[in-house]
Amino acid sequence: MQRKTKKLGRGVAMIGAGMSKFGVFKGVNNRDLFIEAFNSSLKAVDKGIGIEDIEALYVGNYSADLFEQQTGPAEIIGDWLGLNPKPVTRIENMCASGGTAIREGVIAIASGLFDVVLVGGVEKMTNLSTDKVTDTLAYASDVYYEQPCGFTFPGLYAVIATAYLAKYKATPEHLMKVAIKNHNNGALNPKGQFNATILSIMNSRIEKAKKNGGKVPDWKTDMDFLHDPGANPVVAWPLRLFDCSPITDGAACIILAAEEVAKNFTDTPIYIIGTGQGSAPEIHDRPNMTSTGSANEASRQAYEMAGVTAKDIQIAEVLDCFTIAELMAIEDLGFFQQGAAAQAAWDGATARDGSKPINLSGGLKSKGHPIGATGAGQAVEMWHQLRGEAGPRQVPIKNLRLGLTHNIAATGGSCLVHIYERR
Amino acid sequence: MQRKTKKLGRGVAMIGAGMSKFGVFKGVNNRDLFIEAFNSSLKAVDKGIGIEDIEALYVGNYSADLFEQQTGPAEIIGDWLGLNPKPVTRIENMCASGGTAIREGVIAIASGLFDVVLVGGVEKMTNLSTDKVTDTLAYASDVYYEQPCGFTFPGLYAVIATAYLAKYKATPEHLMKVAIKNHNNGALNPKGQFNATILSIMNSRIEKAKKNGGKVPDWKTDMDFLHDPGANPVVAWPLRLFDCSPITDGAACIILAAEEVAKNFTDTPIYIIGTGQGSAPEIHDRPNMTSTGSANEASRQAYEMAGVTAKDIQIAEVLDCFTIAELMAIEDLGFFQQGAAAQAAWDGATARDGSKPINLSGGLKSKGHPIGATGAGQAVEMWHQLRGEAGPRQVPIKNLRLGLTHNIAATGGSCLVHIYERR
Repeated sequence: MQRKTKKLGRGVAMIGAGMSKFGVFKGVNNRDLFIEAFNSSLKAVDKGIGIEDIEALYVGNYSADLFEQQTGPAEIIGDWLGLNPKPVTRIENMCASGGTAIREGVIAIASGLFDVVLVGGVEKMTNLSTDKVTDTLAYASDVYYEQPCGFTFPGLYAVIATAYLAKYKATPEHLMKVAIKNHNNGALNPKGQFNATILSIMNSRIEKAKKNGGKVPDWKTDMDFLHDPGANPVVAWPLRLFDCSPITDGAACIILAAEEVAKNFTDTPIYIIGTGQGSAPEIHDRPNMTSTGSANEASRQAYEMAGVTAKDIQIAEVLDCFTIAELMAIEDLGFFQQGAAAQAAWDGATARDGSKPINLSGGLKSKGHPIGATGAGQAVEMWHQLRGEAGPRQVPIKNLRLGLTHNIAATGGSCLVHIYERR
Repeated sequence: MQRKTKKLGRGVAMIGAGMSKFGVFKGVNNRDLFIEAFNSSLKAVDKGIGIEDIEALYVGNYSADLFEQQTGPAEIIGDWLGLNPKPVTRIENMCASGGTAIREGVIAIASGLFDVVLVGGVEKMTNLSTDKVTDTLAYASDVYYEQPCGFTFPGLYAVIATAYLAKYKATPEHLMKVAIKNHNNGALNPKGQFNATILSIMNSRIEKAKKNGGKVPDWKTDMDFLHDPGANPVVAWPLRLFDCSPITDGAACIILAAEEVAKNFTDTPIYIIGTGQGSAPEIHDRPNMTSTGSANEASRQAYEMAGVTAKDIQIAEVLDCFTIAELMAIEDLGFFQQGAAAQAAWDGATARDGSKPINLSGGLKSKGHPIGATGAGQAVEMWHQLRGEAGPRQVPIKNLRLGLTHNIAATGGSCLVHIYERR
């Protein structure tokens, strides 16, 4: 049963966007990170904007509850931003919390209630030790049908990867290629957690070994490095360390405005012409392990609302919590046929100079994955790229006009897709 | 700076509402409770409705993260309801999560994106021991400025109550009167956690003492009982056990529809003609301890949108997490002058047969307070009362037309106010 996607009451655009540095930061909390992102988004508004113009706030956050012993983070963030007594709301849809916050902001403006809304996401993860973070993330799997099996997310995605590789005769090297490409992009993103290609990481390790007088590894290529179990140990077969996104602190903010008022703030708004949201069972109860129903549905809705097809999309940010997730995403979105993404990645089709550049920001793999902020961070990259302001990592596409973000949650429970247009 | 509240793009109405039994239930989880509430709401739709009519879901939930080791509860609930692949989103605004979920549903319909949306709230609290629940609730206070002082919520509200009693020369007996009134109402609510007046609780304890051959207490009135520190111990002065709402498992659901389609489902929809949401600093940073800025703002917006005043409201459900909170709420809403609520409660003005009946459901005090479900549960009571279907607890008002819900969070960080009309 496919329902016709209805139109929004009125158009919505991004008039500013910015993010905090993503990384590991001691002594700061979610309010500090969010304020850093908010200030960055304020500065991005060409004609200026004041706090008094912001009418409401939606904050995507996965679990300040567990990470920071702080529920109701939106209220505290709103207070610290100086938004009282305006409406502030927290949205939680696991890794899609940030994307869902954007959507709720779009919907709220379309409803007629507000003209200018601040949306964003934040996560402060590194208060906890790595094993506690892993547990906290595992709570996004089903407490009855997945957690008791001892699954954590690398394990869940390893199951998915195993199914994918077997079904499509792909290899771990296809996955490595995704990591290499995303680090290549991320090396050009100063706000990302890692600012280094895998090749440069390899070379710096070689230099270090030489300096310390230890055994110097005989890696010649980044693929050599990624095959070395010392440098890139298996986390859950076939996923190795460099197939996994890191643990990250960070925040990202978008200022949204009704189409009628957007040009009061900038001559170059980025219009959100499609929003889609789908849901699906978690992995234990899914008919197909190598495709995600929520992403199919979310992209179907977004394409229909925007009046475009997968072919029209020029660039995309997709959720690569693990390398396998990027391959599935670009198939679920219709960019590549089922099973064809691995070869496309191998051939460089998804690289910055490829036919369908994916994760120009470096993706979660390189930029980092502060859970609640991730979806908002994707939109920040769209802001930069579509306005031609992405600096050294600007995609070399003439007449760049259409971008897409894909923000999936957990093993696919929710997916948010947004389509962005520069006019 | 007061901004003119804008109108919603189109009208929205409740076409069905229902709740699970509130109480302490072993062996069930949030999905079970939500399904029970959903089935109850489906049955309330006069002309029938199917799952295929529901286009999206918003779930208010405070912290399945901490209570149940389950993040992303909305996705699992959506899956279990059979809503895949439709959009499902969790809203968390502490005790106002349920009210915020209603608002997001109203906004989503007003945006034009959906005609029929399911909203609700749920909390499964009793997996944890009472002390762990107390800690989990305390996380809603500021992790830097309140939690380190050792505050829990009874303590925070004791501070507020102390300030209120001192400022307005009120007494603990005024607070007791609120508890007595809400238990009187709750005794008539079969879905509430407690179904007994304080007098009947007292009498059953006397009976028990007689039967057991112990010392028989010489309580003559419910006030005697409430003054006995054995029966009603101090939790945090001036708040005693019977000033505090209980720890509760429960869920509540509302089915919302666009005004244009509401009559396809029932001849007697209950229209939501006003929605307001305000925010305020938590208690450590508030200029006035005895009034809540978020409630002032939320009610201002809701009255303005609905085109009514406090005087027009005939019945209300307000957040009485502690008895003092009810007194402040009915002042913040403009029903009574600042400082006049204590006397009004004493005089019976807020009783079922008073001039402004408050918490006909029994309120949180008697019905229970499953955090994320509470705001949705308030709307369920509006559904029953305004349709004249509240049975023995039906308010004796002729031409009953207008009701209001007040759903505040923590010590006031957020407040949601909705105004309901029977036409």
